[in-house]
Amino acid sequence: MISLTGFGTLSGFCIFAQKLIVSEINFTPINELGEFGLIDRLTEQIKISNSSTLKAGGDDCAVIDYKNKQTLVSTDMLVSNVHFDLLYTPLQHLGYKSIVAGISDIYGMNGMAGQVLVSVAISNHFSIEMLDLLFSGMLAACEYYSVDFVGGDTTTIGSGLVINVTAMGHASKKDIVYRNGAKKNDVLCVTGDLGAAYTGLLILEREKHVYLEDKKMQPKLEGYDYVLQRHLRPEARMDIVKNFRELHIKPTAMIDISDGLSSEILHISKQSKLGCKLFEDKIPIDPSTYHTARELNLDPTTCSLSGGEDYELLFTLPVEEFEKIKDHPDFTPIGHMTDEDFGCKLISKSGGEHELKAQGWKVFGGEE
Amino acid sequence: MISLTGFGTLSGFCIFAQKLIVSEINFTPINELGEFGLIDRLTEQIKISNSSTLKAGGDDCAVIDYKNKQTLVSTDMLVSNVHFDLLYTPLQHLGYKSIVAGISDIYGMNGMAGQVLVSVAISNHFSIEMLDLLFSGMLAACEYYSVDFVGGDTTTIGSGLVINVTAMGHASKKDIVYRNGAKKNDVLCVTGDLGAAYTGLLILEREKHVYLEDKKMQPKLEGYDYVLQRHLRPEARMDIVKNFRELHIKPTAMIDISDGLSSEILHISKQSKLGCKLFEDKIPIDPSTYHTARELNLDPTTCSLSGGEDYELLFTLPVEEFEKIKDHPDFTPIGHMTDEDFGCKLISKSGGEHELKAQGWKVFGGEE
Repeated sequence: MISLTGFGTLSGFCIFAQKLIVSEINFTPINELGEFGLIDRLTEQIKISNSSTLKAGGDDCAVIDYKNKQTLVSTDMLVSNVHFDLLYTPLQHLGYKSIVAGISDIYGMNGMAGQVLVSVAISNHFSIEMLDLLFSGMLAACEYYSVDFVGGDTTTIGSGLVINVTAMGHASKKDIVYRNGAKKNDVLCVTGDLGAAYTGLLILEREKHVYLEDKKMQPKLEGYDYVLQRHLRPEARMDIVKNFRELHIKPTAMIDISDGLSSEILHISKQSKLGCKLFEDKIPIDPSTYHTARELNLDPTTCSLSGGEDYELLFTLPVEEFEKIKDHPDFTPIGHMTDEDFGCKLISKSGGEHELKAQGWKVFGGEE
Repeated sequence: MISLTGFGTLSGFCIFAQKLIVSEINFTPINELGEFGLIDRLTEQIKISNSSTLKAGGDDCAVIDYKNKQTLVSTDMLVSNVHFDLLYTPLQHLGYKSIVAGISDIYGMNGMAGQVLVSVAISNHFSIEMLDLLFSGMLAACEYYSVDFVGGDTTTIGSGLVINVTAMGHASKKDIVYRNGAKKNDVLCVTGDLGAAYTGLLILEREKHVYLEDKKMQPKLEGYDYVLQRHLRPEARMDIVKNFRELHIKPTAMIDISDGLSSEILHISKQSKLGCKLFEDKIPIDPSTYHTARELNLDPTTCSLSGGEDYELLFTLPVEEFEKIKDHPDFTPIGHMTDEDFGCKLISKSGGEHELKAQGWKVFGGEE
């Protein structure tokens, strides 16, 4: 039995057999409602909490007014068997995570998220009860982050599940932080810790293979609570953006860590036309991530460099600004920006220099 | 050989064998580029034409500033074998249409479209050349409508093609037209003509079945140019919104016609808490739509009431305002709004009263 904050506890069995359980409770085919009935059912549950949301649902468009703020907008598509596996991903958690992944991009620009629009394509293996679970997770995230669910689209698909989240937010012109503003000698900082989501994913994949070989075997998930939580139900760092405002700090460059630390450092370096020096021994890795990686015969540093889906923030700050936050437990300095000629290097624990490489998500099997 | 404006001519063979032809010219697997390479290739072609677009691509979010205007936003998901059939839909046309379908919602609120964000999920049956065709169609629409392509996401999927378009636009508060503002006795008007896209679809479906039974048979598409064009490469009514501004006209209620006339009339009536009287003999139907419907043993009126994908605008105007546009060839009065108690009725050519029913897209097989 592992505890996953917010949606009660889930035994290993529950996770791996959710479809069975949900369908045993009740399986109402989607077509009993029809498209408009489905939309009505989902929109009934939506509450609006932002004054910038003038119209949500029920018309051709949502209407939003950020007054004198600039608008931030980003879109992300999640596909079953590419971004998530329905065998072990609870639908409520998936809904929550899809919103988090969307709004994380807004925080990565130092903005506040305000609205989301969500498109969902589902196959006829999906019941109304399953869709309700998915949406309840989305709405739980919207509530936690004070984000309004203002529009969407629901459609059918031959197989699987596709979710597209468009996240909108706002910031004053002076507060927006781009990737290209880092300066030489700026401190490179990261929030929280890295690599946990990826090791959590690997545990679920390991147990899935055990389960598929022998369905009487129940997945062993005990003791992996932290890494599983980080994979299945991550949080976005709205709190950090609020902290920056309170501390009167504005990073020179920032990005959210969705593809892994290496990839994000390279984005900031390339766009700021700089190099950087990253120190392996400074990378924040939680003890449970470390032990899980070791158990899987993986290098914990590699998991944090290339794992992805951490939804932490990577940013740069001038040294004198960094002084303001150096004792803050959420921030870890991991290196500094250099001349472009230096390139982007990882300084290993033994002092060796290694060129940083971006992994990306390799969803196309590419070598990026 | 049929002519489809904007992308040269396409023979029936070309349409039904596009995959073959494209792959014979060149088939470069997507994974040769990797995710970031793919994004670079696509974004290189993008040109920005709106001053409201402050940042497009290359960061966590796009940044947009509509100044004192309100923001309109809408999202639509298109799925292969649900919304389109790759057997007979040229990719360039599909790209164009996906943008048109997205921005049509902005015009339906009396706003001007400014930006789109596009997510695409493709299987590994897709080559870079095919993706280039799809994007070239999207960019052609962006150019025609002066809309900026500001962000997106590309991912893989087990099979098929999924496109999600989020359209953004703007309008002054005083100009935005909702569905709920119609008043009793307002004239119900429609732009252009209806039912063509649906009959075009039916012709393609008919020829597809002939082709699938005997692949030596070539589809007979000659003479159906207008209805095929309306299905494969529709246009959105930006011109009408501009007309309204020039004529100092503001409809009391408006909606774009994507699900068929009946469904849209019911939306306006329900939200305005009114009934309406629609006259069958007033519904504008192009002669080629009429003849195509008859050839298919269908009632042309039914095609226009329930066909969908016309992307025309349906709106209501007070009688005295209607006088300003009554001689305009793009506008046709088709009925008027009544008390709610009257319900929504179609008055047939023979004078009979029939209750209007919404068909929606029935993508879930429902009875809406």
